[in-house]
Amino acid sequence: MSHTIAIDCMGGDHGPSVTVPAALAFLRAHPNARVILVGQDALLRPMLPSSSDLSERCRIQHASEVVAMDEGPALALRNKKDSSMRVAANLVKDGEAQACVSAGNTGALMAISRFVLKMLPGIDRPAICPILPTMTGHVHMLDLGANVDCTAEHLQQFAIMGSILASAVDHLERPRVGLLNIGEEDIKGNEVVKAAAVLLRQTGLNFVGNVEGDGIYKGHADVVVCDGFVGNVALKSSEGVAQMMATALKQEFKRNIFTKLAALAAMPVLKNFKHRLDHRRYNGASLLGLRGVAVKSHGSADAYAFEQAIARAYEAAANGVPERIGAKLAELHAQPLVAEEGV
Amino acid sequence: MSHTIAIDCMGGDHGPSVTVPAALAFLRAHPNARVILVGQDALLRPMLPSSSDLSERCRIQHASEVVAMDEGPALALRNKKDSSMRVAANLVKDGEAQACVSAGNTGALMAISRFVLKMLPGIDRPAICPILPTMTGHVHMLDLGANVDCTAEHLQQFAIMGSILASAVDHLERPRVGLLNIGEEDIKGNEVVKAAAVLLRQTGLNFVGNVEGDGIYKGHADVVVCDGFVGNVALKSSEGVAQMMATALKQEFKRNIFTKLAALAAMPVLKNFKHRLDHRRYNGASLLGLRGVAVKSHGSADAYAFEQAIARAYEAAANGVPERIGAKLAELHAQPLVAEEGV
Repeated sequence: MSHTIAIDCMGGDHGPSVTVPAALAFLRAHPNARVILVGQDALLRPMLPSSSDLSERCRIQHASEVVAMDEGPALALRNKKDSSMRVAANLVKDGEAQACVSAGNTGALMAISRFVLKMLPGIDRPAICPILPTMTGHVHMLDLGANVDCTAEHLQQFAIMGSILASAVDHLERPRVGLLNIGEEDIKGNEVVKAAAVLLRQTGLNFVGNVEGDGIYKGHADVVVCDGFVGNVALKSSEGVAQMMATALKQEFKRNIFTKLAALAAMPVLKNFKHRLDHRRYNGASLLGLRGVAVKSHGSADAYAFEQAIARAYEAAANGVPERIGAKLAELHAQPLVAEEGV
Repeated sequence: MSHTIAIDCMGGDHGPSVTVPAALAFLRAHPNARVILVGQDALLRPMLPSSSDLSERCRIQHASEVVAMDEGPALALRNKKDSSMRVAANLVKDGEAQACVSAGNTGALMAISRFVLKMLPGIDRPAICPILPTMTGHVHMLDLGANVDCTAEHLQQFAIMGSILASAVDHLERPRVGLLNIGEEDIKGNEVVKAAAVLLRQTGLNFVGNVEGDGIYKGHADVVVCDGFVGNVALKSSEGVAQMMATALKQEFKRNIFTKLAALAAMPVLKNFKHRLDHRRYNGASLLGLRGVAVKSHGSADAYAFEQAIARAYEAAANGVPERIGAKLAELHAQPLVAEEGV
């Protein structure tokens, strides 16, 4: 079956110069996929491919406005009804596309997708779920900043949504779900996390218990659950360390003529190293809990990175992630858990 | 003036084989310092230095028991009155030493130092404050796991204690104090962090506002304040990423004969890189809020790392950190802040 992705071509730091080439590269790699390029027609039209194979699977949907990167989400929602971001979401709502992708501002994408696509019953707002590299593969981690004051029930919802995402896109039968905590023993953690552990143990997931910060990258779980505050800090701290190490390595290799020669000798190795942990490969965070697929790309993504975000959206749509999450939540509501009364 | 450090020689994964050589190296580097080696006399005696310069500044205090690495803190406190950890803390309480250092189990050290040394008025339990490397130097971060459910007032206390520590040991007049948060704007964060920002703004510190996870390593502040849950996750996530990157780099250089040759060529560079971010240099976390100086070393520390922890304790004692924190807290209690009523 063919799936169509609506792409907000105007969002992000670079706009069409990145998003359109990324969309075409995605089409080349996915022969059954289609895309709708959303944005200013006059800008996008000259960038359309000449090859008939691609042009057949690619059309433009005009949108006259653009949400600025620093625009308030409420204002963007209220005042820009014809923004490329909003039109892309509308295409999903109307069934013309099965997913939308944007590198535009996170708050606006949250607000617009929540308003246009609507939340699944029982979910208040989308959780942001990126993929991170680990020593053994990758991990889905949520929430990464959308929900900062969470209850144990929120963490339970994150666990369900993350587990279904991992199961759908990684084809894992029983993804290992871990709870981000400060020790592996049950008695560790703050009150919310302790209550969440009780809930998770009774949700029918493959709950593997607590995962510590370093356990994220050791591959101790396929899904790591945490509140948005902790998740955001963990992610950005990790990025900070990675940048610091990369910078230090570069500086050491640039120190003098001898170290520069060493760099030349080590170039193929350093290239492999860089590719292996290339954050661009992990670009694209799913907004989970919506009735449709929406994926957020880094604003600074280049074409390669943005293509990964489109592919992520395609995988989620092709594997029916929102439908599966909806079904699981409905099941949970129909059969309230014993634990929900007790906690 | 000469300061004496009481060293729990039995704690940590390696015991005297690491702690005693570290103590002697510390004495060599600090000609005015003295140490008391605390532990089983029969084990320590043969390890004493023969040089009279060192042996004059170094004595053994027998302690018949050892707190195990996995022992419950309450049990260690109740049942092992003659543990090396406890005896070291007693030496500080009795004024025979000005600081104690242990690589033993964190919970037990917290419990014992809190019981023996007592907390400063207004502080409930010690905050754990390590030093982390940054792109521009280093940062003091607290709390790192001792206090998991924090109020805004707790974060205020951490800010005061961290600021005084940084000011004392780094000789900074007005250390920049940042609040770990998920965005730089005031409206960001959870409820506790927002309330803490209001308090911090009125505490007379050099409060530079919110610091994001990556800002820790970019050197955006000299002191970063957070609750123990978030701090622990941030620290361990950082360690996890650093390990993953180091492992990936090693694996790439070991891939085949050509990459091994490249490694040979790059060896001096890789060595400098390793030294620069060597976590051993940052070993030793201060337990702040006590009436005396107690420093916790990593359990797996080698002699070089443990020596850094001893030096850290020495610096804190020589600069009167607990006294200065006590004075500042007393001042704060004497003149309650306007904000404390409003928040």
